[in-house]
Amino acid sequence: MRIYTDCIPCQIRQALNSIKMLTKDEKLINEALKKSLETASNFSSYENIFFIYKDIQDIIKKIMPDADPYKVFKEQFNRICMNLTDDLKRLIQNSNDKFEMGLKVCLSGNSIDVMQGQKISEELLKRAIDSSLKQKLDNSKIKLLKDKIQKAKNILFIGDNSGEIVFDKIFIELLKNEFLKSGKITYVVRGGPTLNDATMEDAVLVGMDKVVEIITTGAALPAAYFPLCSEEFLKYYANSDLVISKGQGNLEALIDEKKDIFFLLKIKCSVIAELLQGRHKVDDIVIESMNRN
Amino acid sequence: MRIYTDCIPCQIRQALNSIKMLTKDEKLINEALKKSLETASNFSSYENIFFIYKDIQDIIKKIMPDADPYKVFKEQFNRICMNLTDDLKRLIQNSNDKFEMGLKVCLSGNSIDVMQGQKISEELLKRAIDSSLKQKLDNSKIKLLKDKIQKAKNILFIGDNSGEIVFDKIFIELLKNEFLKSGKITYVVRGGPTLNDATMEDAVLVGMDKVVEIITTGAALPAAYFPLCSEEFLKYYANSDLVISKGQGNLEALIDEKKDIFFLLKIKCSVIAELLQGRHKVDDIVIESMNRN
Repeated sequence: MRIYTDCIPCQIRQALNSIKMLTKDEKLINEALKKSLETASNFSSYENIFFIYKDIQDIIKKIMPDADPYKVFKEQFNRICMNLTDDLKRLIQNSNDKFEMGLKVCLSGNSIDVMQGQKISEELLKRAIDSSLKQKLDNSKIKLLKDKIQKAKNILFIGDNSGEIVFDKIFIELLKNEFLKSGKITYVVRGGPTLNDATMEDAVLVGMDKVVEIITTGAALPAAYFPLCSEEFLKYYANSDLVISKGQGNLEALIDEKKDIFFLLKIKCSVIAELLQGRHKVDDIVIESMNRN
Repeated sequence: MRIYTDCIPCQIRQALNSIKMLTKDEKLINEALKKSLETASNFSSYENIFFIYKDIQDIIKKIMPDADPYKVFKEQFNRICMNLTDDLKRLIQNSNDKFEMGLKVCLSGNSIDVMQGQKISEELLKRAIDSSLKQKLDNSKIKLLKDKIQKAKNILFIGDNSGEIVFDKIFIELLKNEFLKSGKITYVVRGGPTLNDATMEDAVLVGMDKVVEIITTGAALPAAYFPLCSEEFLKYYANSDLVISKGQGNLEALIDEKKDIFFLLKIKCSVIAELLQGRHKVDDIVIESMNRN
């Protein structure tokens, strides 16, 4: 994927947000910002935005070693989402089409854009879910996904954010109880702390490990970007016959892949809308599949 | 004013938006972005954010000489706002308190944040005005401003954006017709194209020159930042006994001034909320006066 210039100011904003969550020391903040700007100024020599992201995060790690800027935030977000689990499960059980409602709940977990500076609260989350559940999805894609899930042997479900992982768990439990035939689901988290993305720690906190096998991408990156992923992840990927990919980062990383991939996400910026060739607009909640095989 | 690190990613975003409005040539866009990042990386050696802004805009001017990125946008925005003039004047004339309603209309002109990438339309503008008019203002400040306007000899009204200048004109006409006693208003526009800010061209387009005397700051900057303003502007400023300042940029430039200044603005970012010591939050529409004399 080429580097979109529109992503560069966001990389700077993310770097600044990350360091400011770790320290109030202006000298350290200034140092991280200065070095991030210098790194980003070489953007045209990079192959991919994820390498820029990595180099900028490495600057922050060097200044504040072993720190996970979003640790407290992620734990809070997971707990707020877990509090909603029973209500959401009831909503699915009482609906006319459990698969569709389960999928919508799963999608709604991607609908809050916490990275753009919103403070999280149960009220904000409920509003985001409500508005997400009201959006119309492409019925033929829902049907296709259901069909593929029922036929699949090895489903690789690549997660995105903390909090959102709770919604993924609700959907995956529904699939296991009512829609999977002989297929198996493996859930993928990030290989280390990266923004507010779900890691093994989040998976264990929300109990995803009690439901399915969990692996990591092997990379502390907000996307399953192959050149930085582990051999183990690549093997699971190769052996899967259906991939479910949550969120923007995974879409950016996987969009050119020749495989059966369903992308579930809320479109949060114009770069992603452009990547999807203008079929959707910013704030849309979508299921996309490339249907390449 | 110290430089807030939070302003740096916005400077990069603005630079990118500006160059992309001028050209589709990726080489030129990349060059402008690279140089803007390099310039911004020296932020801690700058005295003020406006010098950073100036240096970054100079980069764009060097790459695309004599071009005003927002020219077309500004003209469209002015015309959309002019279309609403009769309705807004009627609203004021039919209200119980014409001064308050006129002031609210004037403030509502600052309520759309076009610099954050929203596309402008009459519908969007109407919604922004409606929501702005519904916000509660500090009654004691309204009364104080009215009182000061009635007593003032030389009012300096420092404008902000194109489009918004139409709303300023409606308020200024109301003041001239019903509230000014012996006082005179001078309206200030920017000294040259700078973002979507109003310049002499906009003032003439909307007919502000038919209503009051117009001067410029002498600087192509989105704020009346004294170290870069003309002698003429500074003389008018010194001779004024009341200043009305619209928008965030002017607030940033004038906040530490020892003079009777009323700041009218919508708060669009956390830096400005912080500058006002947390008395308001982002998205509030406010009248602030420092009451220093």
